[in-house]
Amino acid sequence: MSENKLKIEKIRRGTVVDHIDAGYALIILDLTGLAESTNLMTIGVNVPSRKLPKKDIIKIENVFLNEIQKQQISILSPDATISLIEDYNVIEKGKVKIPNVIKKLIVCQNKTCITNSSKEPIDTEFLVLEEKPLKIQCVYCDRIYKLDEISFISKEKTEKKIKQRFQL
Amino acid sequence: MSENKLKIEKIRRGTVVDHIDAGYALIILDLTGLAESTNLMTIGVNVPSRKLPKKDIIKIENVFLNEIQKQQISILSPDATISLIEDYNVIEKGKVKIPNVIKKLIVCQNKTCITNSSKEPIDTEFLVLEEKPLKIQCVYCDRIYKLDEISFISKEKTEKKIKQRFQL
Repeated sequence: MSENKLKIEKIRRGTVVDHIDAGYALIILDLTGLAESTNLMTIGVNVPSRKLPKKDIIKIENVFLNEIQKQQISILSPDATISLIEDYNVIEKGKVKIPNVIKKLIVCQNKTCITNSSKEPIDTEFLVLEEKPLKIQCVYCDRIYKLDEISFISKEKTEKKIKQRFQL
Repeated sequence: MSENKLKIEKIRRGTVVDHIDAGYALIILDLTGLAESTNLMTIGVNVPSRKLPKKDIIKIENVFLNEIQKQQISILSPDATISLIEDYNVIEKGKVKIPNVIKKLIVCQNKTCITNSSKEPIDTEFLVLEEKPLKIQCVYCDRIYKLDEISFISKEKTEKKIKQRFQL
């Protein structure tokens, strides 16, 4: 058995998100709200991979992702694949697809942008200029963002069990 | 093979944190800074267990925890065990120990507490009144906190790759 090989037991039913960019699995779990799940999850971070230098992987039982979660994953890891499992078999598998326009998921940080208006705020929309590395542009104020510059909106987020205050 | 069984490959060298309270592994990774590690990690969340109803487990290669990280884990999961692995063998294993007094790790949320003085702030100290469920008391202002009420200080935290803004 290869020393590098990571074996995570097959799941009976649920979802496998594979080929996640290394280091993004925990961010994806947090953003999608899956971190709060009470279902069995196994996660591999910085796993040696043939296709990429390293990758992350998430397996979660009895959970199937909604469209918002799939879009969130596509933004963070455009090469990710999502497999649906039933009776230990992959019944569907596909690569995530980043939409041409990302709606309601990302905050525009330009305070004067109409999406941040306190009187009549409107939903954010970003045009995807480049997928990898990600480059998006606010439809309303034209400001351009790279992946490490974006802030996500998460309406489904429940309060964390433990609060953290970071003193840098 | 039991359907419930979770098999995560043995690691060659590093640390296994087992018997983490279910749902706390991801919080522990975040708080201890291990989430930012570029080493191979495998994580099980909500894993069926003989001892507890469910548990979490973290395996991380080539990483050994420092005293601060061990204390952070003991606060979040007083039943956790930490094993050191060399050449695929456990060379040391022990249960975490919550200290009698927790120093510098937790914020006192009483704004008038001397630990929050803007002029002469002093390091926080909390007396551990009860381990599980956790109950701690600020040495300076006597305020009492339960686990879900505490805020951690994390000096080692580097900025997250992706910022999240939560709109509840």
